[in-house]
Formats: sequence, structure tokens, C-alpha cells
Amino acid sequence: MPGAPFISFLSDYGLGDEFVGVCHGVIARGCPQAHVVDITHAIPRHDVLTGALVLRDAVPYTPQGVHLAVVDPHVGATGSNARRGVALATADGTSFLVGPDNGLLMLAAERLGGVVSAVDLAASPQRLARVSSTFHGRDVFAPVAAALAAGQPLGAVGQPLAVEDLQPLELPHASVAGGELTAHVLRIDHFGNVILDATRDELAAAGLSLGSPVSLQIAATTHRARYGSTFADVATGELLLYEDAQQSVAVAVNRGSAAEQLAARSGQLLMVRAA
Amino acid sequence: MPGAPFISFLSDYGLGDEFVGVCHGVIARGCPQAHVVDITHAIPRHDVLTGALVLRDAVPYTPQGVHLAVVDPHVGATGSNARRGVALATADGTSFLVGPDNGLLMLAAERLGGVVSAVDLAASPQRLARVSSTFHGRDVFAPVAAALAAGQPLGAVGQPLAVEDLQPLELPHASVAGGELTAHVLRIDHFGNVILDATRDELAAAGLSLGSPVSLQIAATTHRARYGSTFADVATGELLLYEDAQQSVAVAVNRGSAAEQLAARSGQLLMVRAA
Amino acid sequence: MPGAPFISFLSDYGLGDEFVGVCHGVIARGCPQAHVVDITHAIPRHDVLTGALVLRDAVPYTPQGVHLAVVDPHVGATGSNARRGVALATADGTSFLVGPDNGLLMLAAERLGGVVSAVDLAASPQRLARVSSTFHGRDVFAPVAAALAAGQPLGAVGQPLAVEDLQPLELPHASVAGGELTAHVLRIDHFGNVILDATRDELAAAGLSLGSPVSLQIAATTHRARYGSTFADVATGELLLYEDAQQSVAVAVNRGSAAEQLAARSGQLLMVRAA
Repeated sequence: MPGAPFISFLSDYGLGDEFVGVCHGVIARGCPQAHVVDITHAIPRHDVLTGALVLRDAVPYTPQGVHLAVVDPHVGATGSNARRGVALATADGTSFLVGPDNGLLMLAAERLGGVVSAVDLAASPQRLARVSSTFHGRDVFAPVAAALAAGQPLGAVGQPLAVEDLQPLELPHASVAGGELTAHVLRIDHFGNVILDATRDELAAAGLSLGSPVSLQIAATTHRARYGSTFADVATGELLLYEDAQQSVAVAVNRGSAAEQLAARSGQLLMVRAA
Repeated sequence: MPGAPFISFLSDYGLGDEFVGVCHGVIARGCPQAHVVDITHAIPRHDVLTGALVLRDAVPYTPQGVHLAVVDPHVGATGSNARRGVALATADGTSFLVGPDNGLLMLAAERLGGVVSAVDLAASPQRLARVSSTFHGRDVFAPVAAALAAGQPLGAVGQPLAVEDLQPLELPHASVAGGELTAHVLRIDHFGNVILDATRDELAAAGLSLGSPVSLQIAATTHRARYGSTFADVATGELLLYEDAQQSVAVAVNRGSAAEQLAARSGQLLMVRAA
Repeated sequence: MPGAPFISFLSDYGLGDEFVGVCHGVIARGCPQAHVVDITHAIPRHDVLTGALVLRDAVPYTPQGVHLAVVDPHVGATGSNARRGVALATADGTSFLVGPDNGLLMLAAERLGGVVSAVDLAASPQRLARVSSTFHGRDVFAPVAAALAAGQPLGAVGQPLAVEDLQPLELPHASVAGGELTAHVLRIDHFGNVILDATRDELAAAGLSLGSPVSLQIAATTHRARYGSTFADVATGELLLYEDAQQSVAVAVNRGSAAEQLAARSGQLLMVRAA
């Protein structure tokens, strides 16, 4: 064996409280030999889409193992708002995903080859003796992730669930027509970079080439930017359109915040064309 | 042995400097095989009571091992302000607590069955060669925690100290009379939830039942709330009285801050009765 | 072997995004058995000097191993702004430093006995298949650090580089003349403490003795302080001149911010004399 069983952990818990640390304690009880890496706990609170995108972009860089993810606005809800807790096995045969069934796990699952089997954790034998209504990370998801890391098969941690019953996550799609790329703001990162749902190929299809000036239209306002490859390609305070380190097209400001300059919010349309 | 020796680490150092990382380095030198879990380093600066409560609520969820905790307003003080550094063995026989003797460790010790023996670290052979006056986490507590994790007995890390000489931590007590619960604000968490020193049984003794409206009086002001079990039991912006994931009674606002809405501060009295 | 291979990790990435976590993932792929300690990721963005000072002060407290550090304002730049990525072996024979060749590693290297050999990572076989222009921590430095921790020799991770071609880091020097110490503000920490480039011996050379009042002149303003050893040596809100836990002379305010009170900025001159 090349090393200890691997668990990645992503959440919107933040580090301002003990939530993350207590989940680590629960994992250490269930699988003392696990190597746990915190992807991030700074997902904006309740922002399932950002959590799903960050997890998708992180899993190619981790060892195979268990990915524990908790962004869970409906934790403890009952009735029509209820959501399942799930564990998923993916097509690569050695990776698992554990978390709420609200779409959070689905982009990473796709990146790992798709879901091949799923279980519902509602009656998981790994759940702690007392399950709170607000902290399923500690009471359900962490002990299940630890059990899978310790070598338990998927069928031992929950009840079988049809893969097609899992909650999908719908992403918008960029499109190109008449020399214009129509994209959507997927996510705004910590530095104010604005991440779009477009690819470099779509920029080429819209007739843009590296180094050329572009026009960005968002809401009713048009901004001037340059299509470059690194921050230093534009002057301080100016807008850069570029492919980021996760191979998404994004907008940045050299030593500034593109989100502020564009007044951009997640979900908005942004049109790009040659200037 | 199911895994590596376990150390939990809690402090008010924050993550804005290298203090936590340097303590981890010292532990890795003293006990390279230790598995260290950060409970949290976001205890409000110098807030011994909050540190003690968080540690108390975390230890049931960690493996047995060494609990290192540093919230230490009087570090380096001499004369009447001086405080001891201590290591404690608890009744479960396999857990130790290491930190300042200012009450910080005492609630967790009680949760672990009580203190059975204690040593004073003033002349600990594990102290680093040079002990600063401001950073005993690095110079005293981390090396002692590492030594205990590495299997040193308690008597090898300090001088014997009578258990009854340890500094206690006095908590206020909630009381019920005439259909009214009188509680105290123990702690305000990162989300603005207001944690009280009351239990679900005391709410029942005050005649409150799940789902019913309640009145909360704090300072001279009375607020309307509902006794529920999860945030979704009240509308956005409304007050919820509930048992939290640590089995404390608390007040929250659905997608808001109860501390702000109640203008609550740690130590205040809060009266609860049926509305 | 007393334990797993050791890697320390310091950066200005912050914890508000997944950058640190993804680097941990890459390390876990390259060296699953490594024990990784985060020194801090809160170095002020692009502040190479602060990063170098913090790393210098941390390495004496960690096990021997690999020190990965990334504060990299010119990542991805080409032409005259280009900087090398490097890995360095130090004179203690068992420590390595990995990061950008911009001075960041040089104070720690000196603390570890000096650099004995260096390699350029521009064509490192450990670089990931696709190297982004903005995230060399993930794509270059983390995989190289993992390879060194896994036992690869320095020559296997890059091309030989003359030690004298490494970018130095010039620090200012304090001086004493006519009973006055002239020092420079090196760094301001998270609590507003102002760290100088002076030593306790230089304070003595300027005629100052522990406990005596001192005068601090910064910009055109003179402030009254006391030369003490711990915060409690001055009243709340008053200025303390002291030797800090890293053996640097520093200025603090008891329960306040010296940086605010002195309006101090990194690089400024500060004159100290007996009052």
C-alpha cells in the first residue's frame, strides 16, 4: 500500500468555530490511520454550486479515496424540504463521495467517471448514537467517510438507492453566435475573480485571439478588457480575460477585484466579443 | 494499536500568524508519529470560559489521547497574576490535558471523568532550552503534549501537584421558578447563536413544549420566539429557542444573528417563559 | 526512522479558497506518507520579506525535512520580470527549501547553515503535465517538495544552478550611535506588534536597561514607552519595547495595536533612546 487511506474534506463550516475540528475528531475515531486533507471550509455559506465546482476542480489533484463534502442548507429539514444523505461509488473503482444529496457531489462524481452505485444514509449503522438536527457533518457524514476509508464496502454504510434518483446539478451552458460568446457567472472567488462557464475553445469560436482587446457586457454596462494569459498582461487596475488554473475562462483585475469592477453576481449573463 | 497517538489542539491564537504552525512543528519534533487534530484556534482572544466550553463539547468526539489547549491571558505574568502551567491525567486512564491552570481544562476534565493526578510544568524537563515570556504554547505546552503522546508518564513531565489546588472554573446555573426559566448567556458563536446554561429538561420544567411560542427577556427588553428543533421551524429573521448540537439550549435567528437581535453579551441573564 | 518524512508549508494563499488544500492533495499523491505542517498561509499577499522572516523564525522549531514556501508576486511572468523556481539543499544535510527564487527562502537557508546546492525547476520532471501560469504552488512546487520528501535526490528534481546566482534578500541593519538606536520596521504582525531589526544587545549598547522608560521616534513623532519583558509590564493602552518570542526587538501595546498607535509601516525608520 502506498500510504494511509485518503479522505478529502470540503465544507461551508468556516474556521471560526469548532465544527471542522470536531468532524476531524470523529474521523480519527473511526479510521485512525486515515490521512485527511482539508480542501477548503470557506465555501460561501449554503452555496451548493460553488461547493460543487470547487470539489470538481480539486479531485483530479488528490489521491484516490473518500471525498467528504458538506454544504447543506436543508440539514434537518423534514417534509418537502427534506434531503437525503448519500454515499456514492464512482466509476474509477476506488473513490467515494459522501455528503448531502443536493447536487453538491455530482460534478466531482462526473469528473471521476460517473456514479456507479449509491446508498441512502438515513439508517446508516455508522451514524452516531445521537443524531442532532443541525450537525450531520459530525453525526452522519464524517463517521460514514471514516468507515469507507477503513475499508467498509458501500453496501455496509447505507441502503441501496437508484443512481437515477440522485438529485442532479444543472449548470448553465455558454453559447457562441454571431461572433459573440454568451456566458454565465458561475462563481466569484476570494480575490474577486469572476469565473465563467466558458472554455478557451469557445473564445476561439467567437473569434478572439490571445492578446487582443475584448469587450465585456454585463447587465447594461460594457467594459473594455484584454484577452491574456497572466495578470501581468494588463496594467494595474485593468480587466483581464484569461483561462484560469482550473481551465475555466475567467475575468480578473490586475491587483484588484473584477467582481467589484463589473458589479458581477453569481448567475448573471456576461457577453464577450472582440473590441 | 489502532493508530498513531492522538493530540487535539485548541487555542485563541487565530490563523493570522504562524503561532499554530510553529506549535505543530514542535509537536512533530517531539512525537513525529502523533496524529494532531486542530479543534479550533478561533476561541475569542483571552476568553477562557468559551475555550473551556468548546473543549468540553469536543472531547467526546475525539479519540482518547492528549488534549492541548492554550487560552492564556496571564502568560508570562509574575507575582499575584502568575498562573501555573499544568498537565492532568483523567479518570478514563488514557486521556491527558495540557495547558494553563486557569480553569480552561476543567470542564473537559470533568467530562472525561475528573482529574486523577496533576503536575506543575514550571520545571518540566520537556520545556525548550529557552522559554519566552509570551509563547508558552511553543515553549512549554506543545513539547509536554508531544512527550505524553510519545508515551512518557505524567510524572516525567512535571512536579506533582495536589488536584484540589487546581484553579476551578465556576459556571453559573440556570434555575426554574414560577413557570420562568432564568438562564445565563454562556457563549456566542461565530454565527451569532446565543448559547445558554439551560437544558431541555429545564425548559420542560418551565412548562414549555416543543412548537409553542415563548417570550425571552434580556436586559429590559422582551422578544418573541418559538421553541423548535431546527432553523426552518421559524421564518427568516425570526427567533428560535432550541437544543443545539451540543445539547445546550440556545437562541438562533433563521438566517440571521440572535446575538445582534437580542443585543446579547456573554454573562447576561435571560428569562424564558411561555408566551 | 523516527517518523514520516516532514514537509512544512508556508504561503500567502490564505484559507479563503481551495489553493492550500489542492497543494496538500498534490503532496499526498506524490508522497502519501509525508507529514505536512502548515506554518501559516496568512503572509500578507506578495510580501516576500514577511514570508522570509516568518520562515526563518519557524524552521528551528520543526523537524528536519522539506520546507515548501510560496509568496510569488511574479508567478507566470516572462521576460525581465521572470523569476526562477528553485529547490535548495542546506548545510545541515537533511533539509531542503522549495519555492520561487525571489529571496523568500534565503533567510531560512542561512538559519539552516547556508545553501550548499541548488537546482532550477524550469524543466523539473516532477512538474505536473499541464503547468498553469498562475498556480505554480500546485503545478511545480508541491510535486517537487513531495518528491524530495519521498527520498529523491536534489539532482533528480531540476537542473543544477550556481548557488551564487540565487536572488539574495537584503535586510536593513540597525545601528547604535550617540546613545541612540536606529532601527527599521521589518514586519507588523496580526496583533499590530511592530517587529524591528534590532537585538537586545543593541538596546544595551544604546544604554537602555530593562524596566526603564524609553522614547521612540518614528516619522516626526516621539512616543513614550517602557522597556519591559511582558505585556503586563505596562498599563493597558501603553507602549512596550521588548524582546519577542523570536528574539527580535519589537514594540507592542498592552491589549492594543502598536502599529496603529505609532502609525508604523514596514520599512520605516524608528529611533530608540533612553527617556
